[in-house]
Amino acid sequence: MVPAGREDKDSREFRSLLETSPGQAARYLEGVHAADQADWLRDVSAEDAWLVYGELDAEEQAELIEFADDDLRAALIERMSAGDLREVIDELPSDEAADLLGDADTRLAEDVLATIDSETAQELRELAAHDPDTAGGIMATEFVTVGPEERLGDAVKAIRKQGEDAEEELAVFVVDAEGRPLGFLPDRVLLSQPIHTPVDEAMVEPITVGVADDQEDAARLVDKYGLQSLGVVDDSGALIGVISAEDATEVLADEAEEDLLRMAGASAESLHGRASVLRRVRNRLPLMGITVLSGLVSAKVLRWFLETPGEGAGTSDILRYLPLIIGLAGNVGVQSSTILVRAIAMGELEGPRQRAMLRSETLVGVVIGLICGVVLAGVVSLLEPGQLGMAVGIATTAAILCAALMGTSVPVLCTRLGIDPAIVAGPFLICLSDVSGSVLFVAVAKALIPA
Amino acid sequence: MVPAGREDKDSREFRSLLETSPGQAARYLEGVHAADQADWLRDVSAEDAWLVYGELDAEEQAELIEFADDDLRAALIERMSAGDLREVIDELPSDEAADLLGDADTRLAEDVLATIDSETAQELRELAAHDPDTAGGIMATEFVTVGPEERLGDAVKAIRKQGEDAEEELAVFVVDAEGRPLGFLPDRVLLSQPIHTPVDEAMVEPITVGVADDQEDAARLVDKYGLQSLGVVDDSGALIGVISAEDATEVLADEAEEDLLRMAGASAESLHGRASVLRRVRNRLPLMGITVLSGLVSAKVLRWFLETPGEGAGTSDILRYLPLIIGLAGNVGVQSSTILVRAIAMGELEGPRQRAMLRSETLVGVVIGLICGVVLAGVVSLLEPGQLGMAVGIATTAAILCAALMGTSVPVLCTRLGIDPAIVAGPFLICLSDVSGSVLFVAVAKALIPA
Repeated sequence: MVPAGREDKDSREFRSLLETSPGQAARYLEGVHAADQADWLRDVSAEDAWLVYGELDAEEQAELIEFADDDLRAALIERMSAGDLREVIDELPSDEAADLLGDADTRLAEDVLATIDSETAQELRELAAHDPDTAGGIMATEFVTVGPEERLGDAVKAIRKQGEDAEEELAVFVVDAEGRPLGFLPDRVLLSQPIHTPVDEAMVEPITVGVADDQEDAARLVDKYGLQSLGVVDDSGALIGVISAEDATEVLADEAEEDLLRMAGASAESLHGRASVLRRVRNRLPLMGITVLSGLVSAKVLRWFLETPGEGAGTSDILRYLPLIIGLAGNVGVQSSTILVRAIAMGELEGPRQRAMLRSETLVGVVIGLICGVVLAGVVSLLEPGQLGMAVGIATTAAILCAALMGTSVPVLCTRLGIDPAIVAGPFLICLSDVSGSVLFVAVAKALIPA
Repeated sequence: MVPAGREDKDSREFRSLLETSPGQAARYLEGVHAADQADWLRDVSAEDAWLVYGELDAEEQAELIEFADDDLRAALIERMSAGDLREVIDELPSDEAADLLGDADTRLAEDVLATIDSETAQELRELAAHDPDTAGGIMATEFVTVGPEERLGDAVKAIRKQGEDAEEELAVFVVDAEGRPLGFLPDRVLLSQPIHTPVDEAMVEPITVGVADDQEDAARLVDKYGLQSLGVVDDSGALIGVISAEDATEVLADEAEEDLLRMAGASAESLHGRASVLRRVRNRLPLMGITVLSGLVSAKVLRWFLETPGEGAGTSDILRYLPLIIGLAGNVGVQSSTILVRAIAMGELEGPRQRAMLRSETLVGVVIGLICGVVLAGVVSLLEPGQLGMAVGIATTAAILCAALMGTSVPVLCTRLGIDPAIVAGPFLICLSDVSGSVLFVAVAKALIPA
């Protein structure tokens, strides 16, 4: 499914040009959609991405920034001078510009604000001051207002005057003398009705939120009412910003994804891009900690119930640690498979990214397995006599490795076989990891501990 | 967050009017957004919803249908005569009309198609013939085409001519003599550029998919490129339909939600609406079956490793079934909490729906707990001597009940306390249910089986 008209360019050719000359690679990007440019730059090193980016003009740079994911953005912003940043800011809509400034180093941002015209600087400062989780944090300040007594033609004229840059969508609100929204004029109304129609006959009811309202509530309103633009009002009820359908969609999609990964104890970083293996491990360790604690509590409780008079580690002592090992292995398996299933569903696992993701997820599993194994070997050795601690440690590492391998390979295999990985990856995988965890643990324990 | 201008009406007043007279309740809906109308009707019985619906005029009915969720749609369609259906079909855009006909009884749909004009009927038949999972299955056939040699003013005229009903968004594609897309004219270009601008100077590159391409791939293209409309072409490359950003967003959101629920072994039905408790139980039993099987396998494997010479059910025999019980309880807990976390995130748990959902989720847990308990008591009694089967059965039911209660109450509690339920509901809940499952099982086993 190559978008029409771009069959003749591909990322492989881009990467091979890049090896010779970043300038040639940048020229090759001409005519390629900014979304594809951003995509291709994700797969090269941050240094190479920056070299190519430097060859583009400010408008191309701004478009690329708009489509770049968080990691590519961060890599590029890190390398920008105040002059670079200023040129891009000039080209971006206000909400994107404020976000970009917020991501940049504070002193760099101040340098930029000092050199742009004071009205824009003031606007950007105000936008940046809103809590990012509120409607104010995602709104843009570009919109057009008309009075209710005007005609549709006046609204169209206002758009032409304000929106010389056709790249920007401009929402048209009808406001009273105090700037409070009375109505909204959707594009379809402006395009389909005669220009002499009075505004107050053509307008639809405006839907608005307060600037301090939660961004997710605002996004849900856009979704519920199928809005083109949601108005954002200040305490006096005056319109100060708009939230577009596209921005709302992004908020809701990010939120759903975060929920999914959080419930698996992973983080959104794991899914996208360049977060290092160590950072991914750190993100997931809290869940491991909770599982270890609850496993130890459950082992303790079981001991209390099953207290046997004999000394030494017997069969029932071994089995008391089974819930702990199964729990840990299950967690790692579910995290890996959740990340892979989402990555597959979002079409993120194509080309060179697939191998990189499989490798890094497996590596994360190895590191987590080793950490958990060493910690448990130590802790259990303190709590229990004999070789039980060693057995728990080795079995934990083995079971986690096994779960991580299954968690990454099963979703990929399913996709190749044409089976929906979401169905298989959850339940089926937990069962596989339960059984393999039990077997591994008991095998290790039997080998180390005389019956 | 009441949308501006509607502070004076609410669902409670609507429901109390409904008790007296459906006609008064319907009149109360005047001026209420169709999205809210659909929302309010979700909370009343299907019969009452139908009575109110019958009082609306065809245009209001069509709008309500567009915003209704699957359950409300199904309840209304079930009760429609061919005449009712036909009136609504006339008001709906082609993709919605085709979906509605697809949801209706086949003979009813045929009656409707026989009475509408043959061109529209042919179009709807063709739309309905596409696989619902393809681009053809979600595309609409309303769009406007202009030639590259025309001017923007001609495009606007074409919209006015074709789009008399301002409710519909109309995408404007630039096509060659064979109807193949050469360009696209976004609304913002049509509104911001002078009407005498030549079309081929103002148009942007069109992005298209084949009619048989996967709907999710198509939706991802809309998302990736930030498109207003994606073109759908037939084998000859001619434009035959369009997919709007709104439709694409819906496809992607549904897909993400399905993945989330599938990975927890639940189904999308569980989240929305009226699916009966028995149907929810049936949806979730397959996962329970897999877990029971793998738990039995793991108990068998453990026995093989831990074979003890003595007869009767000892401590280690009890512990062999621990993974099974913990696994089942964990599954039920995760399913309930996944459903609740999503419902909370989507703002579905407000008003009367919260109590209904808590009640039905708990009931589902009770039924699943009883089924699993009885089945396991039987199976384990066949496999093992003594009271072990009974102990496993009772402990399974108790552990599942406990997990279901925690799975529903913890997310709600978290929300009340202002904690993100997604973080707590996953990992923390599994640990709670592991510990409580272990304790319950061992307590029951010790009570029933002499040491």
